[in-house]
Amino acid sequence: MTARRLTPSLLLQLLVVASAAGARWRGEGTTRHLQSIILGRCAEYDALVNPDPRGRNCTAIWEAFKVVLVKDPCSVLPSDYDRFIDLSRHSIPRDKSLFWENNHLLVTSYSENGLRFLPLCSVLYGRIGDFLSWCRQENASGLDYQSCPTSEDCENNAVDSFWKRASMQYARESSGVISVMLNGSEPSGAYPVKGFFADFEIPYFQKDKITRIEIWVMHEIGKPKVEENCWKKRRVRNVNPDDSETSQGHPAWSKCSHVKPQRPAGALFFRPSMKSIANPSEYVQGES
Amino acid sequence: MTARRLTPSLLLQLLVVASAAGARWRGEGTTRHLQSIILGRCAEYDALVNPDPRGRNCTAIWEAFKVVLVKDPCSVLPSDYDRFIDLSRHSIPRDKSLFWENNHLLVTSYSENGLRFLPLCSVLYGRIGDFLSWCRQENASGLDYQSCPTSEDCENNAVDSFWKRASMQYARESSGVISVMLNGSEPSGAYPVKGFFADFEIPYFQKDKITRIEIWVMHEIGKPKVEENCWKKRRVRNVNPDDSETSQGHPAWSKCSHVKPQRPAGALFFRPSMKSIANPSEYVQGES
Repeated sequence: MTARRLTPSLLLQLLVVASAAGARWRGEGTTRHLQSIILGRCAEYDALVNPDPRGRNCTAIWEAFKVVLVKDPCSVLPSDYDRFIDLSRHSIPRDKSLFWENNHLLVTSYSENGLRFLPLCSVLYGRIGDFLSWCRQENASGLDYQSCPTSEDCENNAVDSFWKRASMQYARESSGVISVMLNGSEPSGAYPVKGFFADFEIPYFQKDKITRIEIWVMHEIGKPKVEENCWKKRRVRNVNPDDSETSQGHPAWSKCSHVKPQRPAGALFFRPSMKSIANPSEYVQGES
Repeated sequence: MTARRLTPSLLLQLLVVASAAGARWRGEGTTRHLQSIILGRCAEYDALVNPDPRGRNCTAIWEAFKVVLVKDPCSVLPSDYDRFIDLSRHSIPRDKSLFWENNHLLVTSYSENGLRFLPLCSVLYGRIGDFLSWCRQENASGLDYQSCPTSEDCENNAVDSFWKRASMQYARESSGVISVMLNGSEPSGAYPVKGFFADFEIPYFQKDKITRIEIWVMHEIGKPKVEENCWKKRRVRNVNPDDSETSQGHPAWSKCSHVKPQRPAGALFFRPSMKSIANPSEYVQGES
């Protein structure tokens, strides 16, 4: 659900990649003009996308965000974004949530700025962080424009903790029909066993607010179709909110119904070839 | 080529429309947070989309833009944006220009943030103005947040003059294959006889830089196809840069070749059913 997990795109290609010799961390350095970009995105959201009748205080949102910029780059927790989330959160219309893994470009295109769906990157707090990177220098007070830590460097890095917190919030506030768009051309498999969707979204679904889960497995045209059957080939994670923070292990999904290939739904570069529609009780209950 | 000419979209629906009783003008009032939005868009473009190795001076770009905000709302000329354009212009990659009329949503989706095409709204100066509105109050120094003039109110309004100047620049800097996407479901006809494309883009094409013009007439799925034959039913404008600023009249396009319906090209909501490909000499020359 984060720009971290994008397939290559022009935007990413154009990002200044922290590949310079001597970079401390594996990730991109802080995005230049970070403050202007965040203030601008907030202002644009408030004025054009989802006007708040009370008026959003974008300066306060920025102030809440930037507390992590003074913290050690490997000591930022999801909870450090609590106030930022509290200030920037807003309701998500019923049936409009769209979860995904490994197909950011398609999701952006398909959701059409909230016209069809409202994925995390189209919700204010997700929009603010989309495609950006940020962290303090390791042993100094300024921002590190050379590189920032990824999960391979340390778990509690500023960007991952942001997306963990944002993903939890997004999952908690989703209701009605939940749509999930997975990449059937992903060599490691469409159904993520580990990742933001599995770890920070599925466990936070509010069972009593969800009426149906629709899973779209999208196949990239011209790329090999990775055959997958979630009963036989793979154990995927359970969508059981009750399990979320208490269980140590994660049982397999209790059911996963594939249906026959659908006609192309009009997606730009992908076409869906499988669609799973299930009663939420099949997904949000544990194994029975 | 401007947000003024959009088909209804969520963004527009959500804009605060200047329909309040007593609004002076027919257009939307100045977008709230105008300065933050413009500075943010410029910063984002510089950091993420098209980094300028020399670094863009977004503050200077804003300063150049805002000179029109102190002018009478009906006395803003395209040339008032000259300095703004000089500071924000950048080269457009060959074969990447995409002109359009009446299908902003499709163009945005199809161009994919510059991955496939770079329409005016994806060039920095176009991006800065996209979906925004601005004007000074009629008899006071502040901005008018209630309403702004459209072309029906007065020709030299701030927003139209902006898009005229931006469109001219975009056309002048376009080279190689020129793509044009028109809306075949537009009741008034796909080929615009009047409009930004006809009046402020076609006349500014640089004939010696253009190798081919491709015209895509897109039909909205589910909407009636407006049959059109540019020889028999309509005289459309000539793409003759030499005529641009000298001729009083505008001769018809010399040729316009329709081909049979193509298979859907994967567009999200539209499908192209006609495609015109012509040698540029057929379009950028006068009638012979």
